[in-house]
Amino acid sequence: LSNNFDFSRSIANNIPPVPISGRAVVPRVKYDFTTAFLDPSSLPIEGLNLALKTALEDEGQDLAYYPHPQGHPKMREFITDKLKLERSMEIDPDQVILTTGSGQAVARVIELLTNPNDTVITEEFSYQGTLNILRRYGAKLVGAPMDREGIIPEALDKILHRLHKTATKAKYIYTIPTFQNPTGADMSLERRKSFLQIARNHNIPIFEDDCYADLRFTGENTPSLYALDDTNSVVYCGSFSKILAPGMRLGFMVVPKGLVENIKAIHLGATPSQFAILATLYFLKDHLSEHVQKLTTIFHSRKDTAFGAVGEAFGNIVKCDNPDGGLYLWLEFPPNCDLASILPKAREYGMSWGTGAGFSPGQDRKNYMRLCYGHLEPSIIRDGIHQIADFLRQEQII
Amino acid sequence: LSNNFDFSRSIANNIPPVPISGRAVVPRVKYDFTTAFLDPSSLPIEGLNLALKTALEDEGQDLAYYPHPQGHPKMREFITDKLKLERSMEIDPDQVILTTGSGQAVARVIELLTNPNDTVITEEFSYQGTLNILRRYGAKLVGAPMDREGIIPEALDKILHRLHKTATKAKYIYTIPTFQNPTGADMSLERRKSFLQIARNHNIPIFEDDCYADLRFTGENTPSLYALDDTNSVVYCGSFSKILAPGMRLGFMVVPKGLVENIKAIHLGATPSQFAILATLYFLKDHLSEHVQKLTTIFHSRKDTAFGAVGEAFGNIVKCDNPDGGLYLWLEFPPNCDLASILPKAREYGMSWGTGAGFSPGQDRKNYMRLCYGHLEPSIIRDGIHQIADFLRQEQII
Repeated sequence: LSNNFDFSRSIANNIPPVPISGRAVVPRVKYDFTTAFLDPSSLPIEGLNLALKTALEDEGQDLAYYPHPQGHPKMREFITDKLKLERSMEIDPDQVILTTGSGQAVARVIELLTNPNDTVITEEFSYQGTLNILRRYGAKLVGAPMDREGIIPEALDKILHRLHKTATKAKYIYTIPTFQNPTGADMSLERRKSFLQIARNHNIPIFEDDCYADLRFTGENTPSLYALDDTNSVVYCGSFSKILAPGMRLGFMVVPKGLVENIKAIHLGATPSQFAILATLYFLKDHLSEHVQKLTTIFHSRKDTAFGAVGEAFGNIVKCDNPDGGLYLWLEFPPNCDLASILPKAREYGMSWGTGAGFSPGQDRKNYMRLCYGHLEPSIIRDGIHQIADFLRQEQII
Repeated sequence: LSNNFDFSRSIANNIPPVPISGRAVVPRVKYDFTTAFLDPSSLPIEGLNLALKTALEDEGQDLAYYPHPQGHPKMREFITDKLKLERSMEIDPDQVILTTGSGQAVARVIELLTNPNDTVITEEFSYQGTLNILRRYGAKLVGAPMDREGIIPEALDKILHRLHKTATKAKYIYTIPTFQNPTGADMSLERRKSFLQIARNHNIPIFEDDCYADLRFTGENTPSLYALDDTNSVVYCGSFSKILAPGMRLGFMVVPKGLVENIKAIHLGATPSQFAILATLYFLKDHLSEHVQKLTTIFHSRKDTAFGAVGEAFGNIVKCDNPDGGLYLWLEFPPNCDLASILPKAREYGMSWGTGAGFSPGQDRKNYMRLCYGHLEPSIIRDGIHQIADFLRQEQII
């Protein structure tokens, strides 16, 4: 056993570690709907090779030096232009900080903004990775009721008033307004405006996670919350994991100018790989629209397959919205269905899914299921969903 | 100005941010000896392109999934084998955690082990990046006297006894035993053993930074402190920045088994790029010895040029050891020479160097100069050192 190391009182250890998987996050069973992967066969392997070759010819020798602490300036300009075009955001490249995936952005923003016992509001269901980090930093989580347009402003207002009565002020709201993970909810423009108004009335800042906004199948882009806010009260993050490759480990945050130095100080020593940035930048600057179009076409078709199969296999036993984008379906089963306890047995039979428990900031919600379809062939999606339904019937869960 | 963000009491803000450069760390003037860069022209651009191509053919589709939270298993096996061969370390790949450069390893280990006002011992001069992170986490720094074999065990013993008398226990010792940055000191086997014995007598754990061990020009490898310790009291870190490219942003730590889960918890969401790992792994598994040989040949010759020029230009005005490896020379000037205040003017004349102040854990040591030669052509090295000497004479510093 280790000797002499004493970190019982250390800052890092004030916060109990959350259990994290010791294994790579890869599909483990034939019908593995657990994680929002991309489609391996649609990765632009050849394109990345060519992009990297050009990038290294152009500026490869600069790898001998140390990258800019906020990340490659050209990449931050590319992101600035992309966010202006697609998310109606008017920002300066100096507000962009590159990170190893949006996970690191989420961790650093939460580290900056959260003290143990701070109250943080999330959607009623939210991204498991963020919930884990929030718990690690000791946040008390309050889930805000939502419908298929995301957080319901009136419900948020009630929560904030209720907190006010107990002399509690929410520290911030973490929200995924576009193709919300796990529910797929997509905030309309009107909803965004009334949501922002409520937050502003209570002086609560917002942490907007916009990782899935690129993956729209139908409808027009709505501006990000960041774009619609005029009080500098939104921190924003995005990712290249969903349009290029999770393994690239490349994401970014956009922070109001007044926060840049604070975030940089805690981001110290964690600049992402310039090598990965070069390949990503040189590939996407020539192929962004075309590649995203290719991906969304695949995902749209797979979503249709999955949504159809859910209807066939479960009928009206489950409630499931038909999302306009993203990488998952969210199924609500009758309240007595425990989809968490049965999961280990399901895995033995070659099936797996995400459970409501993982995505719940509050009490255990066992009657929900997230199905990720992005990485699976249509026949596997269809067969898998039918197999899951058969299995749940056989086990008398439904 | 930002509105509504309140992080005045936050964990991250308990610690005052240290000023960090807002710019990329690249050479800025003709004779820029400031930073330990690599030689841009010796980067294996073609080799990396080929390695990446093979890697992507072999396992590129796995980029669609999420990497192992400790980093690619094959890379951790490669590191395990490398450390066994070169550093006499017997470890398990599960003890290795990949990081975005050793800077991130240093930050996470310090975050885990340090509380505000903890006493941490470093060498009398030490790596500026680490000192900044230690200060950020509120460490009180004590510099231990050193000679050209690194920390002097008897002096360390005295410091620890002195601390003991004031009821203070040093939390840990941060040391760079091999080609110490900035001094170039290299601990002999005997010195390592007696150093470890003193640390063990006082039950003080050690954080060993071994980033430069690959760059040996003369003499045989000595085992790392980790290898020589039998009490599981050493945390170790290393880097690929010095043998491949700083821009790859790839390093690692090796931690005693009892600390793995704690480090993983605070490393959450910061796994380095799998893309960068693949290129690095596939290149180095076929070319490690050959490439390191190529680099050390270049650096050895440039060191000889630099060392010769220092002798010619400064004569016996400065003390300078002839290092057996690494990327820098360390010059001690007479005590009254202020090499820090004159630096801005020197930059206007196209020269730059590292100052003792930056590398000093304690009081400002103005009469020291670090010269990094790895990225500069021999003629630039020679001319630059003579120009610096002429400039200092002209300014009546020497």
